Amino acid sequence: MDLDNVKIVMVGTTHPGNIGAAARAMKNMMLSRLVLVDPQCPIGEIAYARASGAHDVLDNRQTVDSLEQALADCTLAIATTARSRSLAWPLVTPRELAEKAVNTTASGGRLAIIFGREHSGLTNEEIQLCNLMLTIPTNPEFSSLNVASAIQVVAYEMLVTGELVPPTQVDTVNDDLPASHAEVEGFMKHLQSVMETTGFLNPQQPGLIMQRLRRLYQRAELSKNEVNILRGILTSVEKPRTH
Amino acid sequence: MDLDNVKIVMVGTTHPGNIGAAARAMKNMMLSRLVLVDPQCPIGEIAYARASGAHDVLDNRQTVDSLEQALADCTLAIATTARSRSLAWPLVTPRELAEKAVNTTASGGRLAIIFGREHSGLTNEEIQLCNLMLTIPTNPEFSSLNVASAIQVVAYEMLVTGELVPPTQVDTVNDDLPASHAEVEGFMKHLQSVMETTGFLNPQQPGLIMQRLRRLYQRAELSKNEVNILRGILTSVEKPRTH
Repeated sequence: MDLDNVKIVMVGTTHPGNIGAAARAMKNMMLSRLVLVDPQCPIGEIAYARASGAHDVLDNRQTVDSLEQALADCTLAIATTARSRSLAWPLVTPRELAEKAVNTTASGGRLAIIFGREHSGLTNEEIQLCNLMLTIPTNPEFSSLNVASAIQVVAYEMLVTGELVPPTQVDTVNDDLPASHAEVEGFMKHLQSVMETTGFLNPQQPGLIMQRLRRLYQRAELSKNEVNILRGILTSVEKPRTH
Repeated sequence: MDLDNVKIVMVGTTHPGNIGAAARAMKNMMLSRLVLVDPQCPIGEIAYARASGAHDVLDNRQTVDSLEQALADCTLAIATTARSRSLAWPLVTPRELAEKAVNTTASGGRLAIIFGREHSGLTNEEIQLCNLMLTIPTNPEFSSLNVASAIQVVAYEMLVTGELVPPTQVDTVNDDLPASHAEVEGFMKHLQSVMETTGFLNPQQPGLIMQRLRRLYQRAELSKNEVNILRGILTSVEKPRTH
Protein backbone atom coordinates (compact mmCIF):
# COMPACT_ATOMS: atom_id res chain seq x y z
CA MET A 1 0.00 0.00 0.00
CA ASP A 2 1.26 3.47 -0.80
CA LEU A 3 1.22 5.13 2.61
CA ASP A 4 1.93 8.51 1.03
CA ASN A 5 -1.73 8.49 0.14
CA VAL A 6 -2.77 8.28 3.78
CA LYS A 7 -3.12 11.45 5.89
CA ILE A 8 -3.50 11.57 9.63
CA VAL A 9 -5.72 14.51 10.61
CA MET A 10 -5.82 15.76 14.21
CA VAL A 11 -8.69 18.11 15.01
CA GLY A 12 -8.52 20.72 17.79
CA THR A 13 -5.78 18.94 19.73
CA THR A 14 -5.03 20.67 23.04
CA HIS A 15 -1.87 18.92 24.24
CA PRO A 16 1.37 19.37 22.25
CA GLY A 17 2.74 16.13 23.71
CA ASN A 18 -0.01 14.24 21.93
CA ILE A 19 0.93 15.82 18.61
CA GLY A 20 4.58 14.90 19.12
CA ALA A 21 3.70 11.36 20.17
CA ALA A 22 1.45 11.05 17.13
CA ALA A 23 4.30 12.12 14.84
CA ARG A 24 6.56 9.45 16.37
CA ALA A 25 3.86 6.78 16.09
CA MET A 26 3.29 7.73 12.45
CA LYS A 27 6.94 7.59 11.50
CA ASN A 28 7.36 4.27 13.31
CA MET A 29 4.67 2.91 10.98
CA MET A 30 5.91 4.66 7.82
CA LEU A 31 3.24 7.36 7.69
CA SER A 32 4.43 10.91 7.07
CA ARG A 33 1.51 13.18 6.28
CA LEU A 34 0.21 14.96 9.37
CA VAL A 35 -2.50 17.61 9.16
CA LEU A 36 -3.54 19.73 12.14
CA VAL A 37 -6.97 21.30 12.06
CA ASP A 38 -7.22 24.34 14.32
CA PRO A 39 -4.70 23.12 16.94
CA GLN A 40 -5.24 24.55 20.45
CA CYS A 41 -1.59 24.55 21.48
CA PRO A 42 1.81 25.68 20.24
CA ILE A 43 3.91 23.11 18.37
CA GLY A 44 7.19 23.71 20.15
CA GLU A 45 9.62 22.08 22.51
CA ILE A 46 7.16 19.70 24.14
CA ALA A 47 5.89 18.37 20.85
CA TYR A 48 9.39 17.93 19.43
CA ALA A 49 10.62 16.19 22.59
CA ARG A 50 7.83 13.63 22.39
CA ALA A 51 8.35 13.21 18.64
CA SER A 52 11.75 11.80 19.58
CA GLY A 53 13.38 11.75 16.15
CA ALA A 54 10.26 12.16 14.04
CA HIS A 55 11.04 15.86 13.62
CA ASP A 56 10.53 15.63 9.89
CA VAL A 57 6.88 14.65 10.36
CA LEU A 58 6.32 17.71 12.56
CA ASP A 59 8.32 19.99 10.25
CA ASN A 60 6.27 18.92 7.25
CA ARG A 61 2.89 19.16 8.96
CA GLN A 62 0.08 21.09 7.35
CA THR A 63 -2.07 23.37 9.48
CA VAL A 64 -5.56 24.39 8.37
CA ASP A 65 -8.56 26.10 9.91
CA SER A 66 -11.30 23.62 9.18
CA LEU A 67 -11.77 19.92 8.62
CA GLU A 68 -13.24 20.63 5.21
CA GLN A 69 -9.94 22.15 4.10
CA ALA A 70 -8.04 19.14 5.38
CA LEU A 71 -10.24 16.74 3.47
CA ALA A 72 -10.39 18.65 0.22
CA ASP A 73 -8.03 16.46 -1.80
CA CYS A 74 -9.00 13.14 -0.20
CA THR A 75 -11.21 10.48 -1.71
CA LEU A 76 -12.07 8.63 1.48
CA ALA A 77 -12.46 10.25 4.91
CA ILE A 78 -12.67 8.17 8.05
CA ALA A 79 -13.77 9.61 11.40
CA THR A 80 -12.37 7.91 14.49
CA THR A 81 -14.83 7.77 17.36
CA ALA A 82 -14.66 6.26 20.80
CA ARG A 83 -17.77 4.25 20.29
CA SER A 84 -20.79 3.86 18.14
CA ARG A 85 -23.02 6.90 18.40
CA SER A 86 -26.61 7.55 17.64
CA LEU A 87 -25.28 8.60 14.27
CA ALA A 88 -25.80 5.54 12.07
CA TRP A 89 -22.66 5.84 9.99
CA PRO A 90 -20.93 2.86 8.40
CA LEU A 91 -18.58 1.48 11.00
CA VAL A 92 -15.24 -0.22 10.45
CA THR A 93 -12.52 -1.61 12.70
CA PRO A 94 -8.87 -0.63 12.17
CA ARG A 95 -8.22 -3.95 10.46
CA GLU A 96 -11.18 -3.61 8.13
CA LEU A 97 -10.07 -0.09 7.32
CA ALA A 98 -6.56 -1.23 6.48
CA GLU A 99 -7.88 -3.96 4.21
CA LYS A 100 -10.08 -1.45 2.50
CA ALA A 101 -7.27 1.09 2.22
CA VAL A 102 -5.17 -1.32 0.17
CA ASN A 103 -7.76 -1.24 -2.57
CA THR A 104 -8.52 2.42 -2.20
CA THR A 105 -4.92 3.51 -2.63
CA ALA A 106 -4.29 0.95 -5.38
CA SER A 107 -6.97 2.57 -7.44
CA GLY A 108 -5.53 6.05 -6.92
CA GLY A 109 -7.57 7.02 -3.88
CA ARG A 110 -6.33 9.21 -1.02
CA LEU A 111 -7.38 8.58 2.57
CA ALA A 112 -7.72 10.88 5.55
CA ILE A 113 -8.09 9.30 8.98
CA ILE A 114 -9.40 11.84 11.45
CA PHE A 115 -8.86 12.00 15.21
CA GLY A 116 -10.85 14.37 17.40
CA ARG A 117 -10.28 16.52 20.48
CA GLU A 118 -8.88 14.90 23.63
CA HIS A 119 -11.99 15.51 25.71
CA SER A 120 -14.84 15.78 23.26
CA GLY A 121 -13.81 13.95 20.08
CA LEU A 122 -15.41 14.99 16.82
CA THR A 123 -18.69 16.83 16.46
CA ASN A 124 -21.58 15.25 14.62
CA GLU A 125 -21.09 17.82 11.88
CA GLU A 126 -17.47 16.76 11.45
CA ILE A 127 -18.38 13.08 11.35
CA GLN A 128 -20.88 13.80 8.67
CA LEU A 129 -18.09 15.06 6.45
CA CYS A 130 -16.65 11.56 6.50
CA ASN A 131 -17.38 8.37 4.59
CA LEU A 132 -16.88 5.98 7.44
CA MET A 133 -16.63 5.82 11.20
CA LEU A 134 -13.71 3.94 12.66
CA THR A 135 -13.94 2.44 16.13
CA ILE A 136 -11.04 0.77 17.87
CA PRO A 137 -12.16 -2.27 19.87
CA THR A 138 -11.69 -1.57 23.59
CA ASN A 139 -12.78 -2.37 27.09
CA PRO A 140 -16.44 -1.24 27.04
CA GLU A 141 -15.99 0.18 30.53
CA PHE A 142 -12.86 2.16 29.72
CA SER A 143 -12.99 2.92 26.07
CA SER A 144 -11.31 6.29 25.67
CA LEU A 145 -7.84 5.89 24.21
CA ASN A 146 -5.24 8.59 24.33
CA VAL A 147 -5.33 10.23 20.89
CA ALA A 148 -1.71 9.38 20.07
CA SER A 149 -2.31 5.79 21.19
CA ALA A 150 -5.30 5.60 18.88
CA ILE A 151 -3.12 6.87 16.03
CA GLN A 152 -0.50 4.27 16.98
CA VAL A 153 -3.01 1.42 16.74
CA VAL A 154 -4.47 2.58 13.43
CA ALA A 155 -1.04 3.27 11.90
CA TYR A 156 0.13 -0.17 13.03
CA GLU A 157 -2.81 -1.83 11.29
CA MET A 158 -2.18 0.20 8.15
CA LEU A 159 1.41 -1.01 8.07
CA VAL A 160 0.84 -4.63 9.05
CA THR A 161 -2.45 -5.45 7.46
CA GLY A 162 -1.54 -3.30 4.49
CA GLU A 163 1.30 -5.79 4.13
CA LEU A 164 3.96 -3.23 3.63
CA VAL A 165 6.27 -5.31 5.69
CA PRO A 166 8.22 -7.50 3.31
CA PRO A 167 8.44 -11.17 4.27
CA THR A 168 11.93 -10.76 5.62
CA GLN A 169 11.46 -13.00 8.61
CA VAL A 170 14.11 -15.63 8.20
CA ASP A 171 13.93 -18.56 10.54
CA THR A 172 16.55 -17.47 12.99
CA VAL A 173 15.90 -20.30 15.41
CA ASN A 174 17.89 -22.93 13.67
CA ASP A 175 20.72 -20.96 12.21
CA ASP A 176 22.58 -24.20 11.73
CA LEU A 177 21.32 -27.10 9.67
CA PRO A 178 18.45 -29.23 10.90
CA ALA A 179 19.45 -32.62 12.20
CA SER A 180 18.60 -35.60 10.04
CA HIS A 181 16.19 -38.23 11.25
CA ALA A 182 19.08 -40.65 11.68
CA GLU A 183 21.00 -38.16 13.81
CA VAL A 184 18.05 -37.62 16.11
CA GLU A 185 17.49 -41.36 16.36
CA GLY A 186 21.16 -41.87 17.17
CA PHE A 187 20.79 -39.41 19.99
CA MET A 188 17.61 -41.07 21.27
CA LYS A 189 19.32 -44.48 21.39
CA HIS A 190 22.32 -42.93 23.10
CA LEU A 191 20.07 -41.25 25.66
CA GLN A 192 18.21 -44.47 26.36
CA SER A 193 21.46 -46.36 26.81
CA VAL A 194 22.80 -43.79 29.28
CA MET A 195 19.55 -43.80 31.23
CA GLU A 196 19.75 -47.56 31.51
CA THR A 197 23.35 -47.35 32.65
CA THR A 198 22.56 -44.86 35.38
CA GLY A 199 19.59 -46.95 36.45
CA PHE A 200 17.07 -44.22 35.71
CA LEU A 201 15.38 -46.45 33.14
CA ASN A 202 14.52 -50.08 33.73
CA PRO A 203 15.03 -51.76 30.30
CA GLN A 204 12.29 -54.25 31.20
CA GLN A 205 9.80 -51.50 32.04
CA PRO A 206 10.67 -48.35 30.14
CA GLY A 207 7.11 -47.13 30.60
CA LEU A 208 6.23 -43.78 29.10
CA ILE A 209 9.56 -42.13 29.77
CA MET A 210 11.12 -42.74 26.37
CA GLN A 211 7.89 -41.76 24.65
CA ARG A 212 7.78 -38.49 26.56
CA LEU A 213 11.38 -37.69 25.78
CA ARG A 214 10.91 -38.51 22.12
CA ARG A 215 7.93 -36.21 21.94
CA LEU A 216 9.89 -33.42 23.55
CA TYR A 217 12.87 -33.67 21.21
CA GLN A 218 10.78 -34.17 18.08
CA ARG A 219 8.82 -31.08 18.92
CA ALA A 220 11.99 -29.07 19.36
CA GLU A 221 13.14 -29.88 15.82
CA LEU A 222 16.76 -30.27 16.80
CA SER A 223 19.62 -28.87 14.78
CA LYS A 224 22.82 -30.74 13.99
CA ASN A 225 24.76 -28.67 16.52
CA GLU A 226 22.21 -29.33 19.21
CA VAL A 227 22.41 -33.07 18.63
CA ASN A 228 26.18 -32.84 18.86
CA ILE A 229 26.00 -30.99 22.16
CA LEU A 230 23.46 -33.37 23.63
CA ARG A 231 25.51 -36.40 22.59
CA GLY A 232 28.62 -34.77 23.98
CA ILE A 233 26.89 -34.49 27.33
CA LEU A 234 25.88 -38.15 27.18
CA THR A 235 29.43 -39.20 26.33
CA SER A 236 30.77 -37.18 29.24
CA VAL A 237 28.30 -38.90 31.53
CA GLU A 238 29.46 -42.32 30.37
CA LYS A 239 33.07 -41.70 31.29
CA PRO A 240 34.17 -43.29 34.58
CA ARG A 241 34.57 -40.71 37.35
CA THR A 242 36.45 -40.73 40.58
CA HIS A 243 34.28 -40.14 43.61
CA MET B 1 -8.97 -15.49 26.09
CA ASP B 2 -8.59 -15.02 29.81
CA LEU B 3 -6.61 -11.78 29.98
CA ASP B 4 -6.13 -12.21 33.74
CA ASN B 5 -3.44 -14.73 32.82
CA VAL B 6 -1.43 -12.11 30.95
CA LYS B 7 1.08 -9.92 32.78
CA ILE B 8 2.72 -6.83 31.36
CA VAL B 9 6.25 -6.51 32.76
CA MET B 10 8.17 -3.23 32.45
CA VAL B 11 11.89 -3.48 33.21
CA GLY B 12 13.91 -0.53 34.47
CA THR B 13 11.52 2.10 33.18
CA THR B 14 12.89 5.62 33.69
CA HIS B 15 9.91 7.84 32.86
CA PRO B 16 6.82 7.77 35.10
CA GLY B 17 4.69 9.10 32.23
CA ASN B 18 5.39 5.91 30.30
CA ILE B 19 4.23 3.79 33.22
CA GLY B 20 1.02 5.79 33.51
CA ALA B 21 0.42 5.66 29.76
CA ALA B 22 1.04 1.90 29.84
CA ALA B 23 -1.55 1.47 32.59
CA ARG B 24 -4.09 3.39 30.53
CA ALA B 25 -3.29 1.39 27.38
CA MET B 26 -3.64 -1.84 29.35
CA LYS B 27 -7.00 -0.95 30.86
CA ASN B 28 -8.28 0.21 27.46
CA MET B 29 -7.55 -3.31 26.24
CA MET B 30 -8.80 -5.15 29.35
CA LEU B 31 -5.42 -6.04 30.78
CA SER B 32 -4.92 -5.38 34.48
CA ARG B 33 -1.74 -7.05 35.73
CA LEU B 34 1.23 -4.68 35.65
CA VAL B 35 4.61 -5.68 37.09
CA LEU B 36 7.48 -3.22 37.44
CA VAL B 37 10.98 -4.63 37.64
CA ASP B 38 13.41 -2.24 39.32
CA PRO B 39 11.66 0.98 38.17
CA GLN B 40 13.99 3.98 37.92
CA CYS B 41 11.39 6.61 38.78
CA PRO B 42 8.75 7.37 41.40
CA ILE B 43 5.19 6.30 40.62
CA GLY B 44 3.46 9.49 41.61
CA GLU B 45 1.54 12.39 40.20
CA ILE B 46 2.97 12.20 36.68
CA ALA B 47 2.22 8.51 36.31
CA TYR B 48 -1.31 8.90 37.67
CA ALA B 49 -2.03 11.88 35.43
CA ARG B 50 -1.06 9.93 32.32
CA ALA B 51 -2.99 6.86 33.52
CA SER B 52 -6.08 9.04 33.17
CA GLY B 53 -8.61 6.85 34.94
CA ALA B 54 -6.64 3.62 35.00
CA HIS B 55 -5.64 4.29 38.61
CA ASP B 56 -6.63 0.78 39.60
CA VAL B 57 -3.98 -0.71 37.32
CA LEU B 58 -1.33 1.46 38.95
CA ASP B 59 -2.66 0.85 42.47
CA ASN B 60 -2.53 -2.91 41.93
CA ARG B 61 0.91 -2.99 40.34
CA GLN B 62 3.54 -5.38 41.62
CA THR B 63 7.10 -4.15 42.06
CA VAL B 64 10.02 -6.60 42.16
CA ASP B 65 13.80 -6.40 42.03
CA SER B 66 14.61 -8.80 39.23
CA LEU B 67 13.07 -10.16 36.07
CA GLU B 68 13.40 -13.68 37.46
CA GLN B 69 11.07 -12.79 40.31
CA ALA B 70 8.55 -11.36 37.88
CA LEU B 71 8.60 -14.52 35.79
CA ALA B 72 8.65 -17.16 38.54
CA ASP B 73 4.99 -18.18 38.28
CA CYS B 74 4.70 -17.73 34.49
CA THR B 75 4.75 -20.53 31.97
CA LEU B 76 5.53 -18.48 28.86
CA ALA B 77 7.78 -15.43 28.87
CA ILE B 78 8.01 -13.15 25.85
CA ALA B 79 10.75 -10.53 25.46
CA THR B 80 9.87 -7.51 23.34
CA THR B 81 12.80 -6.24 21.28
CA ALA B 82 13.13 -3.49 18.72
CA ARG B 83 14.44 -5.84 16.11
CA SER B 84 16.03 -9.17 15.52
CA ARG B 85 19.37 -9.46 17.29
CA SER B 86 22.32 -11.70 16.91
CA LEU B 87 20.62 -13.80 19.57
CA ALA B 88 18.81 -16.48 17.60
CA TRP B 89 15.72 -16.77 19.76
CA PRO B 90 12.33 -17.75 18.28
CA LEU B 91 10.64 -14.62 16.95
CA VAL B 92 6.92 -13.78 16.83
CA THR B 93 4.83 -10.79 15.73
CA PRO B 94 2.16 -9.35 18.05
CA ARG B 95 -0.53 -11.12 16.03
CA GLU B 96 1.23 -14.46 16.16
CA LEU B 97 1.72 -14.00 19.88
CA ALA B 98 -1.97 -13.25 20.42
CA GLU B 99 -2.95 -16.36 18.45
CA LYS B 100 -0.55 -18.44 20.49
CA ALA B 101 -1.75 -16.89 23.76
CA VAL B 102 -5.29 -18.10 23.13
CA ASN B 103 -4.15 -21.70 23.34
CA THR B 104 -1.59 -21.10 26.07
CA THR B 105 -4.13 -19.55 28.43
CA ALA B 106 -6.79 -22.11 27.47
CA SER B 107 -4.50 -24.90 28.68
CA GLY B 108 -3.81 -23.17 31.99
CA GLY B 109 -0.67 -21.27 31.01
CA ARG B 110 0.30 -17.83 32.29
CA LEU B 111 2.04 -15.29 30.05
CA ALA B 112 4.45 -12.48 30.82
CA ILE B 113 5.14 -9.97 28.06
CA ILE B 114 8.26 -8.01 28.87
CA PHE B 115 9.19 -4.49 27.81
CA GLY B 116 12.70 -3.12 28.35
CA ARG B 117 14.30 0.17 29.27
CA GLU B 118 13.47 3.26 27.19
CA HIS B 119 16.99 3.69 25.87
CA SER B 120 18.57 0.29 26.01
CA GLY B 121 15.78 -2.28 25.97
CA LEU B 122 16.45 -5.68 27.52
CA THR B 123 19.86 -7.23 28.09
CA ASN B 124 20.83 -10.48 26.40
CA GLU B 125 20.74 -12.14 29.82
CA GLU B 126 17.16 -10.99 30.31
CA ILE B 127 16.13 -12.21 26.87
CA GLN B 128 17.63 -15.61 27.61
CA LEU B 129 15.19 -16.03 30.50
CA CYS B 130 12.38 -15.89 27.94
CA ASN B 131 10.83 -18.42 25.59
CA LEU B 132 10.16 -16.08 22.69
CA MET B 133 11.17 -12.73 21.28
CA LEU B 134 8.41 -10.40 20.12
CA THR B 135 9.10 -7.79 17.46
CA ILE B 136 6.54 -5.22 16.39
CA PRO B 137 6.69 -4.58 12.64
CA THR B 138 7.92 -1.02 12.04
CA ASN B 139 9.64 1.34 9.67
CA PRO B 140 13.11 -0.22 9.40
CA GLU B 141 14.63 3.26 9.47
CA PHE B 142 12.75 4.39 12.58
CA SER B 143 11.96 1.31 14.53
CA SER B 144 12.06 2.37 18.17
CA LEU B 145 8.56 2.71 19.55
CA ASN B 146 7.80 4.50 22.76
CA VAL B 147 7.44 1.79 25.39
CA ALA B 148 3.82 2.65 26.22
CA SER B 149 3.01 2.68 22.50
CA ALA B 150 4.54 -0.77 22.15
CA ILE B 151 2.39 -1.95 25.06
CA GLN B 152 -0.63 -0.34 23.37
CA VAL B 153 -0.04 -2.27 20.14
CA VAL B 154 0.54 -5.59 21.86
CA ALA B 155 -2.43 -5.15 24.20
CA TYR B 156 -4.62 -4.25 21.24
CA GLU B 157 -3.62 -7.46 19.44
CA MET B 158 -4.25 -9.49 22.57
CA LEU B 159 -7.77 -8.08 22.80
CA VAL B 160 -8.69 -8.14 19.12
CA THR B 161 -6.96 -11.25 17.81
CA GLY B 162 -7.57 -12.97 21.12
CA GLU B 163 -11.28 -12.52 20.61
CA LEU B 164 -11.28 -13.33 16.92
CA VAL B 165 -9.49 -16.64 17.31
CA PRO B 166 -11.47 -19.30 19.16
CA PRO B 167 -9.46 -21.53 21.50
CA THR B 168 -10.43 -24.60 19.54
CA GLN B 169 -6.97 -25.98 19.11
CA VAL B 170 -6.47 -28.38 21.96
CA ASP B 171 -2.80 -28.59 22.71
CA THR B 172 -2.17 -32.28 22.23
CA VAL B 173 1.54 -31.88 22.71
CA ASN B 174 1.42 -30.81 26.30
CA ASP B 175 -1.44 -32.77 27.71
CA ASP B 176 0.06 -32.13 31.11
CA LEU B 177 0.48 -28.69 32.65
CA PRO B 178 3.13 -26.27 31.42
CA ALA B 179 6.16 -25.89 33.67
CA SER B 180 6.58 -22.58 35.47
CA HIS B 181 9.56 -20.38 34.77
CA ALA B 182 11.00 -21.22 38.19
CA GLU B 183 10.74 -24.96 37.47
CA VAL B 184 12.55 -24.61 34.16
CA GLU B 185 15.26 -22.48 35.79
CA GLY B 186 15.69 -25.14 38.46
CA PHE B 187 16.27 -27.70 35.74
CA MET B 188 18.75 -25.46 33.89
CA LYS B 189 20.81 -25.00 37.05
CA HIS B 190 20.70 -28.74 37.73
CA LEU B 191 21.81 -29.50 34.16
CA GLN B 192 24.69 -27.04 34.38
CA SER B 193 25.81 -28.54 37.68
CA VAL B 194 25.79 -32.08 36.30
CA MET B 195 27.69 -31.02 33.20
CA GLU B 196 30.31 -29.44 35.40
CA THR B 197 30.53 -32.58 37.51
CA THR B 198 31.03 -34.82 34.49
CA GLY B 199 33.62 -32.43 33.13
CA PHE B 200 31.62 -31.71 29.98
CA LEU B 201 31.43 -28.07 30.92
CA ASN B 202 34.37 -26.08 32.17
CA PRO B 203 32.89 -23.65 34.74
CA GLN B 204 35.60 -21.16 33.81
CA GLN B 205 34.77 -21.36 30.11
CA PRO B 206 31.13 -22.32 29.68
CA GLY B 207 31.24 -20.82 26.17
CA LEU B 208 28.07 -21.06 24.17
CA ILE B 209 27.00 -24.46 25.42
CA MET B 210 24.66 -23.21 28.16
CA GLN B 211 23.21 -20.58 25.86
CA ARG B 212 22.50 -23.23 23.21
CA LEU B 213 20.88 -25.55 25.72
CA ARG B 214 18.85 -22.74 27.19
CA ARG B 215 17.62 -21.82 23.72
CA LEU B 216 16.63 -25.40 23.04
CA TYR B 217 14.68 -25.88 26.25
CA GLN B 218 13.05 -22.43 26.23
CA ARG B 219 11.87 -23.10 22.71
CA ALA B 220 10.43 -26.48 23.67
CA GLU B 221 8.17 -24.91 26.33
CA LEU B 222 8.58 -27.80 28.75
CA SER B 223 5.73 -29.34 30.68
CA LYS B 224 5.87 -30.11 34.39
CA ASN B 225 6.20 -33.86 33.70
CA GLU B 226 9.01 -33.29 31.25
CA VAL B 227 10.93 -31.21 33.78
CA ASN B 228 10.44 -33.99 36.31
CA ILE B 229 11.75 -36.62 33.90
CA LEU B 230 14.75 -34.53 32.89
CA ARG B 231 15.65 -33.82 36.51
CA GLY B 232 15.20 -37.49 37.32
CA ILE B 233 17.76 -38.32 34.66
CA LEU B 234 20.16 -35.76 36.08
CA THR B 235 19.71 -37.11 39.59
CA SER B 236 20.38 -40.64 38.36
CA VAL B 237 23.54 -39.41 36.69
CA GLU B 238 24.72 -37.83 39.91
CA LYS B 239 24.51 -41.07 41.87
CA PRO B 240 27.81 -42.93 42.35
CA ARG B 241 28.04 -46.00 40.12
CA THR B 242 30.08 -49.17 40.28
CA HIS B 243 32.09 -49.90 37.18
